Amino acid sequence: MYRTHTCGELRISDVSKSVTLAGWVQRARKLGGMTFIDLRDRYGITQLVVGADAPEALVESANSLGREFVIQVKGTVVERQSKNPKMDTGDVEIAVSDINILNKSLTPPFTIEEQSDGGEDIRAKYRYLDLRRAPLKRALELRHRIAHECRNYLDAHGFLEIETPYLIKSTPEGARDFVVPSRMNPGEFYALPQSPQTFKQLLMVAGYDRYMQIVRCFRDEDLRADRQPEFTQIDCEMSFVEQDDVLAMFEGMMRSLFKNVLGVDVPNPLPRMSWYDAMDNYGSDKPDVRFGMLIHEITADAQGHGFGVFDSVPYVGAIAVEGAAGWSRKELDELTEWVKRPQIGAKGLVYIKLNEDGTVKSSIDKFFSPEELQAIAAKVEAKKGDLVLVLCGPKRKTQTQLGVLRLELAGRAGLRDPKVFAPLWIVDFPLLEWSEEDGRFYAMHHPFTAPKPEHLDLFYSDRKEDLERVCANAYDFVLNGNELGGGSIRIHNADVQERMFQVLGIGKEEAEYKFGFIINAFKFGAPPHGGLAFGFDRLCALFGGQETIRDYIAFPKNNQGRDVMIDSPSRIDQVQMDELCLASTVKQ
Amino acid sequence: MYRTHTCGELRISDVSKSVTLAGWVQRARKLGGMTFIDLRDRYGITQLVVGADAPEALVESANSLGREFVIQVKGTVVERQSKNPKMDTGDVEIAVSDINILNKSLTPPFTIEEQSDGGEDIRAKYRYLDLRRAPLKRALELRHRIAHECRNYLDAHGFLEIETPYLIKSTPEGARDFVVPSRMNPGEFYALPQSPQTFKQLLMVAGYDRYMQIVRCFRDEDLRADRQPEFTQIDCEMSFVEQDDVLAMFEGMMRSLFKNVLGVDVPNPLPRMSWYDAMDNYGSDKPDVRFGMLIHEITADAQGHGFGVFDSVPYVGAIAVEGAAGWSRKELDELTEWVKRPQIGAKGLVYIKLNEDGTVKSSIDKFFSPEELQAIAAKVEAKKGDLVLVLCGPKRKTQTQLGVLRLELAGRAGLRDPKVFAPLWIVDFPLLEWSEEDGRFYAMHHPFTAPKPEHLDLFYSDRKEDLERVCANAYDFVLNGNELGGGSIRIHNADVQERMFQVLGIGKEEAEYKFGFIINAFKFGAPPHGGLAFGFDRLCALFGGQETIRDYIAFPKNNQGRDVMIDSPSRIDQVQMDELCLASTVKQ
Repeated sequence: MYRTHTCGELRISDVSKSVTLAGWVQRARKLGGMTFIDLRDRYGITQLVVGADAPEALVESANSLGREFVIQVKGTVVERQSKNPKMDTGDVEIAVSDINILNKSLTPPFTIEEQSDGGEDIRAKYRYLDLRRAPLKRALELRHRIAHECRNYLDAHGFLEIETPYLIKSTPEGARDFVVPSRMNPGEFYALPQSPQTFKQLLMVAGYDRYMQIVRCFRDEDLRADRQPEFTQIDCEMSFVEQDDVLAMFEGMMRSLFKNVLGVDVPNPLPRMSWYDAMDNYGSDKPDVRFGMLIHEITADAQGHGFGVFDSVPYVGAIAVEGAAGWSRKELDELTEWVKRPQIGAKGLVYIKLNEDGTVKSSIDKFFSPEELQAIAAKVEAKKGDLVLVLCGPKRKTQTQLGVLRLELAGRAGLRDPKVFAPLWIVDFPLLEWSEEDGRFYAMHHPFTAPKPEHLDLFYSDRKEDLERVCANAYDFVLNGNELGGGSIRIHNADVQERMFQVLGIGKEEAEYKFGFIINAFKFGAPPHGGLAFGFDRLCALFGGQETIRDYIAFPKNNQGRDVMIDSPSRIDQVQMDELCLASTVKQ
Repeated sequence: MYRTHTCGELRISDVSKSVTLAGWVQRARKLGGMTFIDLRDRYGITQLVVGADAPEALVESANSLGREFVIQVKGTVVERQSKNPKMDTGDVEIAVSDINILNKSLTPPFTIEEQSDGGEDIRAKYRYLDLRRAPLKRALELRHRIAHECRNYLDAHGFLEIETPYLIKSTPEGARDFVVPSRMNPGEFYALPQSPQTFKQLLMVAGYDRYMQIVRCFRDEDLRADRQPEFTQIDCEMSFVEQDDVLAMFEGMMRSLFKNVLGVDVPNPLPRMSWYDAMDNYGSDKPDVRFGMLIHEITADAQGHGFGVFDSVPYVGAIAVEGAAGWSRKELDELTEWVKRPQIGAKGLVYIKLNEDGTVKSSIDKFFSPEELQAIAAKVEAKKGDLVLVLCGPKRKTQTQLGVLRLELAGRAGLRDPKVFAPLWIVDFPLLEWSEEDGRFYAMHHPFTAPKPEHLDLFYSDRKEDLERVCANAYDFVLNGNELGGGSIRIHNADVQERMFQVLGIGKEEAEYKFGFIINAFKFGAPPHGGLAFGFDRLCALFGGQETIRDYIAFPKNNQGRDVMIDSPSRIDQVQMDELCLASTVKQ
């Protein structure tokens, strides 16, 4: 071993010990004939001192050290004259008697500090240097800790981690698969799994009634910001359970993660909110409930006053912005432009200012009396000094726009504190979504999601209105406005499954083609089962108080799906192409 | 929850409790008006009884149950009249008051018992049914337990599990890569990793000085028996360590696995054997040391007696087979044919029988006096009643043949008990292998394996004989004749690396092309480091007392790399091919 202690270990109680440390030179500086070196490893930083009276060779060696040199030093722990209370090792330093340069280093292309001076591209290219920075080290340590706690909890609850294959079969449903040509089976391809969904359900058929896996998944999508072509899931499934059993098990897991990893207590049980309430009150199926600013429907109050914009739409909704009555015309104009951007798509923005002096001022003064505006404000739970913002249009669309506006204004007001955690379950999703365009129903989750048992009568109804009201036995785990996980109770009954295909307009032949394999497996005694999956990358990021996942993945890819560090993907040899019986059709 | 207890849980102390169980019907049988049902789940089997006096509907329901039906039953725990001491639940049975058929089952195509009547192909096709059998359930439970213990040990020793990417870059060295065409980067490919070797070394450069991962690896090889295109490794790397540190850490891990998973104590420290001793004494670099039957060189004794076969070769070696002096001519002929098979390739087999009466009988009586044969037998540590078997030829080749013969005879004699565990380290491998054919050296492991520090002088010598004597800082973990793991201390010094390329005849340009990326990363302060990887599938199989890995993988592929259950690989849509800018060159 090249060291007796790590660089994060020594304390005042170690004074006068002879120690050997090894690590990287964070920085070296001369001060009045003495040389001070900050030596860094994964565990911390320890200050080294080479005295002015040290042997010449040692002083020379100390002065030859550049940033990121790897060295081994021997010396004695001494108490510091000027202590550094910000560092765990700040009470001591090492009086160095020997320096052994283990490896030199070129000058790194950016500073390896808490905040680096390197741009994103250069840091991505030299990821192995960026990973030396403390924020990334904390991120990966946190990731390890969460995975470990997660496995411990699930192991203690009887779950088996079972590895499912990565070389599977391409399926005609869902997002695009990455495929892998098979040399031994020319012209044929494996696919990389988008999730182990089929396999975990087969494991339930096989009787492994509590399955878990922290598993890589692959999706060949056009990448949006903060999406990765490969990502990690905590994937779980249980048999002989109902929805409440699944929720209890996994909120228990999340509670233990919050407690054991972050020292944070979250409510027991966690709040549950129906999808309908989430949409009505937050304009989102993944509501951020760290703050209020709820959406209120004011259709009845808003219509019939001669304001055509309100009168011509099915829904009028509003939120109250605390203390914002004083916003200027310019600020309101900017906000109006903001909601009219195509990403949000509102037609316009109506405001009502509740001035501190009790008067009201609104962009629709012409159509509403002050009393009528006050009545609206009261419905929105606005008080003196607040600003009411109103949008209108089709119900869900308008609620969604209000939801986005709500998040934006909360962000501006600093109400979205990443150190505050407000997890909850969203339940009672609609089972089916009607597509006006196609004139048919689609499964909101997937065609194996079970309807709620109490809605089975509705599910067998022929009326569109009834079918629209059927709720699914599905659930999402939401944290701070992010969907962190989701799942459902699966259909295990062949009749219900057949009805599902019927409702979705999937014929016997199509069902056989698309889902035949799993349907057949289910004929050999499928137990009632259900499960869920958590997005592990995002879970780690949110636990770390970050919105982006990239720092929580050791070697991420960029938005073009490239690993710029290893320069991948890349061309392969013609020999390889020939062996795979493939030709490229790319025009050179 | 569909149950109050599992089918493996109830004991005599639970008698008179009202319980609900759920599971699969293992079998149902009528006996004197009563119906007995064995109900099975992951945890065990519990006997259910429907009495002759039960309500008609219940009796009918019980009699309608087929094998593998999924049912939920309510009832009362009662003491059995005739207890079954072989079952954990054998003291009790459930007097059933209610049966709820959760799902019917088609008749499975083979019996779901400890031993199945199904052939390998049908069981592979219905893997989800085969997985219901107790031996496979035990295998996957064992696999889970080993992984969990392994992670706990390494976590307790400060290792971080860090996930490395699966979509990486194809490298021109080593076995064939599986590749993944990139739609977003037309004409370019990712590769699936054969191991995370590069990434774990980068993590050392990045300062994560204790890394571990249980990780899938991929190798597009022509499959031999018991090889899988995707397999799992326990992959580890450490910084600031020497060989002894690595061995101590990981034999500690193996010791804790043996103890905590199997309740087996293995020696502390584990035996270490040099590669040279392993070859000389066992004719294998992965010796099975559960039994003796060592190989002895008898070249000096064998030559100069006028037997041309011996006189014309560089090496003569022998083993003693205990108590086999009485083997018939026919048995010896069969054995001679066996060693002459092309897989072994011996030219012939010489024997010396040490009869119980003190006489000797040999196929080379003509050339050797009884005393000379006795002298040879003494060297081989044979005693009265034993049989000495002699092979000759080039040294390592002959030793290897003797090694294979040794294993075969030990197997026949029942000396390879899978419940006996004899782990050891093989160390002091040669760094380099001379290829007569190519007239150059190859790296025995890979070009980043460090020479032993005490052999650095030899390493810089220009003499072939010196270079052949250089030992590597490499090590294999061997269990019962299987190489379970291996690794090395890596070269971190640029000069040593340069010398390595020079010795291997790899020019600067070629080195840059093949290894440029990692060589450049090493310029920014690479610490001394080393590591190893264990083959997790085989580790599980050996811990389970099996020689084949297939039952220890939930969804394995067959020898053609096919998953016959999901019928993969398979053709993909032309649309997918077009999107990937690929055309098949397979002749239809």
